Amino acid sequence: MKADLNPHISVDCVVFGFDGNELNVLLINRDPADASHPTGKLKLPGDLIIRSEMLAAAAQRILTEFTGLHDIYLKQFGIFDDPQRLDSSDDLEWLRNRSGLSIERVVTVAYYSLVKINHSIQTDLSIAYHACWYPCASIPALIFDHNRIIENGMEVLRRELLTEPLCFELLPDKFAINQLQRLYEAILGCSLDNRNFRKKIQRLPYIEPLNERQKGVPHKPARLHVFDNEKYLLLKKDHTIFIL
Amino acid sequence: MKADLNPHISVDCVVFGFDGNELNVLLINRDPADASHPTGKLKLPGDLIIRSEMLAAAAQRILTEFTGLHDIYLKQFGIFDDPQRLDSSDDLEWLRNRSGLSIERVVTVAYYSLVKINHSIQTDLSIAYHACWYPCASIPALIFDHNRIIENGMEVLRRELLTEPLCFELLPDKFAINQLQRLYEAILGCSLDNRNFRKKIQRLPYIEPLNERQKGVPHKPARLHVFDNEKYLLLKKDHTIFIL
Repeated sequence: MKADLNPHISVDCVVFGFDGNELNVLLINRDPADASHPTGKLKLPGDLIIRSEMLAAAAQRILTEFTGLHDIYLKQFGIFDDPQRLDSSDDLEWLRNRSGLSIERVVTVAYYSLVKINHSIQTDLSIAYHACWYPCASIPALIFDHNRIIENGMEVLRRELLTEPLCFELLPDKFAINQLQRLYEAILGCSLDNRNFRKKIQRLPYIEPLNERQKGVPHKPARLHVFDNEKYLLLKKDHTIFIL
Repeated sequence: MKADLNPHISVDCVVFGFDGNELNVLLINRDPADASHPTGKLKLPGDLIIRSEMLAAAAQRILTEFTGLHDIYLKQFGIFDDPQRLDSSDDLEWLRNRSGLSIERVVTVAYYSLVKINHSIQTDLSIAYHACWYPCASIPALIFDHNRIIENGMEVLRRELLTEPLCFELLPDKFAINQLQRLYEAILGCSLDNRNFRKKIQRLPYIEPLNERQKGVPHKPARLHVFDNEKYLLLKKDHTIFIL
């Protein structure tokens, strides 16, 4: 129980992680391992904000507390304000007991992030709450409206993937086209035609082929490419059709 | 005093209006005309939400109540969450008195809209609260952080103006290039070179010149143009550089 929590506003963090093959999301147990619910329901890392706290600071604090991740770029992407969002099942009762506060309605502000799965997520709380990556393709039922929040975050992520070069943050600096394709497929949740994908990528002047090939792969080593951010930014400026 | 207000969350509406010459914003008096403050401080149309209300519904309700505007597209653009945002001057005291609620911290969710100034804004409340257009170039000091909310809304509006064709919603269907230039100047808050502007606009294939000229103007009648949204959408699709 924390007496200084604001019982009306919370933040929730949707951290997407790519492991080279699948898109995952970071979830924690609702209750710590030593509580009366040993298996525990799952939820997003999130909590009520502290009375004197800004939302963005709360999101960073909570993410670090529960997962050990810090200095992660978190983007605010939605407000979940359904007055009934806490009502179903025993989750509201759980929140009242855990916080020791008289809670009626909580509006939550959601943040998302996209990271490579190579960060260690070991903190006292991450161990107690069993912070873990779960494949986006098979997320179990979560508490409150957390499934909906993830779905919404996925939509934002897909939109950004199609309009911004954020995918290169998830790949090694030098990558093969099939690695990029796998990432697109994981985020879009569908398979793409190899030949078409390759053709489209080869048309993009800011993806440069190198005179270098993959090493130590079990298949025929593919040619490596790099993303040229400067070229991308110049082209983007030219292609934005309403800039005067 | 409304007993069913949520004393923790409010919405505020930044309604920008273009009158053919200047960009304006809709403000209301803090107190109705018959209150003890006859001149009154100014504020954005906004209020605490009702306990059972969604944020978007609250924004529409409040805008209609205070200004008579309805079915206006309101876009959520920011959350203002500084824990001290209510503290300055006597505004917090005023809010406590008016609502009859014990108010500590209010997080406000801001919406913006862009309309032609040709709507009638006459309702009982709009008259009582003296809802009025004020030029964005000279907004007086408002209560709470409402000046900051407007500045922030202006930034969002400028960004959208440079990347989306929203300006055509503020012009007549047939417009002269100098009318479009005046709108850009009003929103960007600077003057643009006539010749350069004309050249840039004439390069845009979705702005079509007509064989028609302005009528009843005191100066030499200028050629009229129309915006072709279908052409725009096709071109936009081609120019979005990350769409696969």
